[in-house]
Amino acid sequence: MNEISGKRAAAALAAIRGKKPLVHNITNYVVMNYTANALLACGASPVMAHAAAEVQEMTALAGALVLNIGTLSPAWIEAMHLAGERANQLGVPVILDPVGAGATRLRTETAKELLTRLKVSLVRGNASEIMALASGEGGTKGVDSIHGVEEAALVAPGLARDLQTPVAITGPQDLITDGKRTFMVGNGHPLMSRVTGMGCTATALTGAFLAVEPDPVDAATWALSYLGLAGERAALSANGPGSFAVALLDALYNLDAPALAAGARVSQVLS
Amino acid sequence: MNEISGKRAAAALAAIRGKKPLVHNITNYVVMNYTANALLACGASPVMAHAAAEVQEMTALAGALVLNIGTLSPAWIEAMHLAGERANQLGVPVILDPVGAGATRLRTETAKELLTRLKVSLVRGNASEIMALASGEGGTKGVDSIHGVEEAALVAPGLARDLQTPVAITGPQDLITDGKRTFMVGNGHPLMSRVTGMGCTATALTGAFLAVEPDPVDAATWALSYLGLAGERAALSANGPGSFAVALLDALYNLDAPALAAGARVSQVLS
Amino acid sequence: MNEISGKRAAAALAAIRGKKPLVHNITNYVVMNYTANALLACGASPVMAHAAAEVQEMTALAGALVLNIGTLSPAWIEAMHLAGERANQLGVPVILDPVGAGATRLRTETAKELLTRLKVSLVRGNASEIMALASGEGGTKGVDSIHGVEEAALVAPGLARDLQTPVAITGPQDLITDGKRTFMVGNGHPLMSRVTGMGCTATALTGAFLAVEPDPVDAATWALSYLGLAGERAALSANGPGSFAVALLDALYNLDAPALAAGARVSQVLS
Repeated sequence: MNEISGKRAAAALAAIRGKKPLVHNITNYVVMNYTANALLACGASPVMAHAAAEVQEMTALAGALVLNIGTLSPAWIEAMHLAGERANQLGVPVILDPVGAGATRLRTETAKELLTRLKVSLVRGNASEIMALASGEGGTKGVDSIHGVEEAALVAPGLARDLQTPVAITGPQDLITDGKRTFMVGNGHPLMSRVTGMGCTATALTGAFLAVEPDPVDAATWALSYLGLAGERAALSANGPGSFAVALLDALYNLDAPALAAGARVSQVLS
Repeated sequence: MNEISGKRAAAALAAIRGKKPLVHNITNYVVMNYTANALLACGASPVMAHAAAEVQEMTALAGALVLNIGTLSPAWIEAMHLAGERANQLGVPVILDPVGAGATRLRTETAKELLTRLKVSLVRGNASEIMALASGEGGTKGVDSIHGVEEAALVAPGLARDLQTPVAITGPQDLITDGKRTFMVGNGHPLMSRVTGMGCTATALTGAFLAVEPDPVDAATWALSYLGLAGERAALSANGPGSFAVALLDALYNLDAPALAAGARVSQVLS
Repeated sequence: MNEISGKRAAAALAAIRGKKPLVHNITNYVVMNYTANALLACGASPVMAHAAAEVQEMTALAGALVLNIGTLSPAWIEAMHLAGERANQLGVPVILDPVGAGATRLRTETAKELLTRLKVSLVRGNASEIMALASGEGGTKGVDSIHGVEEAALVAPGLARDLQTPVAITGPQDLITDGKRTFMVGNGHPLMSRVTGMGCTATALTGAFLAVEPDPVDAATWALSYLGLAGERAALSANGPGSFAVALLDALYNLDAPALAAGARVSQVLS
């Protein structure tokens, strides 16, 4: 990261810790606990709420709305639309995680319908999920990617332009693009792929950064640097994926703004 | 804690470990795993069940019923009433955690209706939640408190008298009152506020103590001392909120009855 | 384990790590995160999906289907039947975890109906749950067993023959039988009973082994040896159930095929 964007990333992390923005998550059952803890470690205030009767009120209190389709059901899809509409009315940024798009029609179609009916600030997925949104065809085995970021990188800028929504693809390297500007994030560790919900955590943390930074490409780039850098630190003491997941929460908590500015490895892709 | 109540607290913890009471939780998705593990570490036997078709049977087997409104939906509200009615018929103590009361009408009204229609042995919340129940007006940002325990302490005794239900407010200091007797618990550690569901864990553990101690003020005081003392121990080895949450489960498991009697810091507030 | 079956167990673990089979879980909220992490640590690819609209598509992608009744509701029961029917059509092995059977009629009857209407490859439960299925009468206090494996061992072979479904009973010793061949697994550690969802983890891991080994008695025997051996290793560094649960994920990840072959303690029961 160059010096200016390093300082802006650090300022964003400091802003999260100062303002403690509420991040409203309508997310999947598997990761709720871990992403709530990651948001707390980052300095944000997480809330999970999905009842149609309350999601609009909750979103109105929030600095960002995270929609994650990892364990869908009809009532939750309705709640995502209700919350998203209110977020759009109020200018609350919305981030979508299309977990498992491409694996089932329900997931692919739900993700597409959310993208069509709502103004989404950013989509964060793995390579297979992003390719499923781009091609309209399945290709994911489940929720783990079977494609490389390089493959998805070929379609991501076009997808971002078509959707008018920036796209972040996470994997061994992360790629963030709005179709005009494209960044790569080199931070991270292989153990991140052996902990469930690490992608969902990337999405939730990006929500926290979106609550303090209006540019979604910048917010995602910084959030992914922050998470990846914490992963690098966590790996230093980990004996496997269990202790890694625990140490990652510690690292998110202990990583301060100057360390983020110094450790983030971001490069702009010049087309 | 004076010597007599220290011995009674220790006896209660020993009773939980001897009897392994079933604690039936109708609780939120975020904390289910952690509170189940905390109850196991304490010595109780946790069960989570929410289907209308089975909650009354499950409650009939239980030593305490924990109602937690952290991720509500209509079916779960119905289940809470069904289980609570059976608990009342059978004399099974009911404890209510009004997570996020004040943040949305659904939460505030659900908490109040449960308190109106059921005989609840104790309400355990953070300062903002308790103030929302007392004032009938919102004031919570999400599920994290934006008020101090001192503020809530001003309204808690009156609320307890109005509801005829003892109230426990957790925070940097915990306050437990039935409107006549009031206790403060000084155990705890700041990292407890950086782990999701720590308040829910306080509620669940109070459920375990209620299963062996009929006086809800005593049960809550001891449970909060026990949890806070475990938090102090966990902090000794923690590097951040991730390792703290893990070490807290270890500490709950390893804390024995004499150590609870010796380490609890409880004072009675004389009005 | 004799040398031949030790080698076959090791080959199965290596096959999981090579093929990364998708394991589709329709399971309870309490354990979703932990069992997903255990499956990842083992080398499989977990997915949780329960919507009626997608479970058949997801099962069609899977190497095994895990049905776990730990937090039932009507929609989830329907999803289990839909997914199970598709699994049966496609020859995807189905494993059932009758969590809390015997505690409520809903659980006992749901487990029995799944066993009646589906071809289930294996049932994995604790002693009380298996006895409830055998006797048709309740006897569980909640989800923790109140019976010994020895008691359940008396009814398990007959139950397996009646159901034409092999049965695995886990506890201080594990017993696996199809009514003709019966094995005991001696691996494990007492702390395994102090972590929530350890039985559910046994079931999920057995699902992973079933995805690569068609004989359910062998698959369950190896999965339970693998989990028990990881438990023994985890206990070496654990300070209580919190650190044990974390270390167990590390151990599942680090245990390699030769170590499984060398460390598994399996004996055949000659009738």
